Amino acid sequence: MKRPVISLLTDFGASDHYVGVMKGVILGICPAAQLVDISHEIEPYAITEAAYTLAQTWQFFPDGTIHLVVVDPGVGSLRRPILATTTAEAGGHLFVAPDNGVLTLLLDTAVMRKVREITAARYFRQPVSQTFHGRDIFAPVAAHLASGVAPGRFGKGIEDAVRLNFAKPMAAGPDKWTGTILKIDRFGNLITNFRSERWRRLAWQPFELRAGRQNVSRLATSYAEVMSEEVFLIQGSGGYLEVSVNKGSAAALTGCEPGSQLELILRKKPGKST
Amino acid sequence: MKRPVISLLTDFGASDHYVGVMKGVILGICPAAQLVDISHEIEPYAITEAAYTLAQTWQFFPDGTIHLVVVDPGVGSLRRPILATTTAEAGGHLFVAPDNGVLTLLLDTAVMRKVREITAARYFRQPVSQTFHGRDIFAPVAAHLASGVAPGRFGKGIEDAVRLNFAKPMAAGPDKWTGTILKIDRFGNLITNFRSERWRRLAWQPFELRAGRQNVSRLATSYAEVMSEEVFLIQGSGGYLEVSVNKGSAAALTGCEPGSQLELILRKKPGKST
Amino acid sequence: MKRPVISLLTDFGASDHYVGVMKGVILGICPAAQLVDISHEIEPYAITEAAYTLAQTWQFFPDGTIHLVVVDPGVGSLRRPILATTTAEAGGHLFVAPDNGVLTLLLDTAVMRKVREITAARYFRQPVSQTFHGRDIFAPVAAHLASGVAPGRFGKGIEDAVRLNFAKPMAAGPDKWTGTILKIDRFGNLITNFRSERWRRLAWQPFELRAGRQNVSRLATSYAEVMSEEVFLIQGSGGYLEVSVNKGSAAALTGCEPGSQLELILRKKPGKST
Repeated sequence: MKRPVISLLTDFGASDHYVGVMKGVILGICPAAQLVDISHEIEPYAITEAAYTLAQTWQFFPDGTIHLVVVDPGVGSLRRPILATTTAEAGGHLFVAPDNGVLTLLLDTAVMRKVREITAARYFRQPVSQTFHGRDIFAPVAAHLASGVAPGRFGKGIEDAVRLNFAKPMAAGPDKWTGTILKIDRFGNLITNFRSERWRRLAWQPFELRAGRQNVSRLATSYAEVMSEEVFLIQGSGGYLEVSVNKGSAAALTGCEPGSQLELILRKKPGKST
Repeated sequence: MKRPVISLLTDFGASDHYVGVMKGVILGICPAAQLVDISHEIEPYAITEAAYTLAQTWQFFPDGTIHLVVVDPGVGSLRRPILATTTAEAGGHLFVAPDNGVLTLLLDTAVMRKVREITAARYFRQPVSQTFHGRDIFAPVAAHLASGVAPGRFGKGIEDAVRLNFAKPMAAGPDKWTGTILKIDRFGNLITNFRSERWRRLAWQPFELRAGRQNVSRLATSYAEVMSEEVFLIQGSGGYLEVSVNKGSAAALTGCEPGSQLELILRKKPGKST
Repeated sequence: MKRPVISLLTDFGASDHYVGVMKGVILGICPAAQLVDISHEIEPYAITEAAYTLAQTWQFFPDGTIHLVVVDPGVGSLRRPILATTTAEAGGHLFVAPDNGVLTLLLDTAVMRKVREITAARYFRQPVSQTFHGRDIFAPVAAHLASGVAPGRFGKGIEDAVRLNFAKPMAAGPDKWTGTILKIDRFGNLITNFRSERWRRLAWQPFELRAGRQNVSRLATSYAEVMSEEVFLIQGSGGYLEVSVNKGSAAALTGCEPGSQLELILRKKPGKST
């Protein structure tokens, strides 16, 4: 028996029964579904945090996974439910979500094949409540997809899905960039918006990164090579540079929060100065 | 292969190993079981919170689901373990729980078919500890049920399962009712004990609901139709009226807590006065 | 279809996407895997807490379960990944973990059959990051094990896996022992390092256990037999004596924390004195 995978990402928390209710609805429609939690601890209504978390996660799931994202401050408004599919080369992943920008980091990339507005109410749980579309729209649609209903049955393609502005580093001078902190994880690592592959030069180019109360000037290749208490940069597992401390919390040492500004200054190489 | 669904609802929290141990025991008896968490963050020993959470959830699961509820302040006492079954029309759900009132909201309803005391110790894990009946009694019984053992094998029917008093709104005058808050969810919504279907008239009947520091006089049909910061009533997804704020926390704005008293006052319709 | 069980125990927390990513990687390699969380709320880097939690849990899982433990402060250092197997009599469980002592409580017991260093990089996810071996090494190895790859394929046996010192009670006089608190659970129970089976005599031997602000002199056989507010000892479900309060928190009443010292003093039996 095939066991289609459905991942779940919400801001519902672990205390309330909302996630359990969605899972019950899914299993009633698609008993074979394999349900996997990504997180339910997204800050309530935090669309950008959900977008970032999803972008860090989906590609590690099996081909054909259905990703159910319910961070939905606009429930009950006219915001559309959408269904997005990636190309076959990108694994044919499917995303079921409100059209509020939570898919922004995927929408304009090469992996995205098509975005549809979900309009086929025959796949909804009736009556549709005004407050819990996770239960009444998104979970049933994900379950019907898992049961083999083709994406085209849920609605027509659209081109104007909502995009949010995600901060990218900006040049602030000839050798100076400003960036920000996308997220702080449980270990206190500061995940910056500087992409690792764009900043490889920091391995040989002297630099200073101003992060709150700390100035960082070292790009380490592992946590273990650095003494405790020293704040350093490292290539994080999600493709971004992270500010870290070996066995400690960079968040505590820098005083930074999500959204805090960073300043990156490139220095001349000592060997070439005169 | 059939995959019987077992839902889990406990006050064990996510940090300790107790839930994992119960799941291990279940899979040892019934490898095909599909395990779904409802919540493990019920306040320790909070039977009424568990009863309410269960009542909001079970009916969204597939027919035949086994609901395992372990909120059990009386573990090691003479309180009985019970097994309750709903009618076939109600899906033939099964509930395995301590007899402490956690099933109250189901017991005297039309969906309930039979309640049994679980006495068949051959289905328990031996030796039965004095402190962890979730592992030694409730999980194994749920797993044997999932494996196909008939409910009648676990013990005889009883009529005197424990019921708790759940507060219902009470008339406090000709146009005045007092109610209470059953629960506050993660978003700060106040779930009241006023049933939506009994109070439909609030859509056209002027009213005032006194909830802590706020007076509420609007029944909205969606979050989105209301401006930020305004506190309003809405028909919640669980069948009760809820006090809410669009993208904000009604709990913070009203200062209410679970159990706080509410006063509902009906006003004369302006058009018909004098 | 066989559904191999993989348990997961980490310090990754529930908010971040790390656990979801590991699960996605596993299901990509072994779609039939049944994933069961033990806990992801181990204190960051707390190897001893993870070791204790694992020791309390693994034996309740089905024979052949693969236990994936990722509490890994040494990620990126030269610490080895290891694969340990128990004897067939002990169920043939498999443990995939960093070699940092997290398996200490198993290593020198009769159930342990063999410990291997994991060196077969062909089973890793490439490229292996410096910061997330859970995703790149441990999860893929667990998944390949679940798919049927024999343990011997992952690397050669070693004898020098890291052991940590776990505190055992020590004699501090002819009738006096000092012990400690291994863990405090969600209910405020203090799990001591006094093994229940070694201290059965406390059922008839008068004693005094000094635990923070409280002196305990009763070994109860159930929570329910003791009045509220009285602190007592009880044989816990995990094999250790626990300091408990009926429907209350022994942690709050004693003021103890994990690691707090305990003093156990044996008294002469009253009937035999003079």
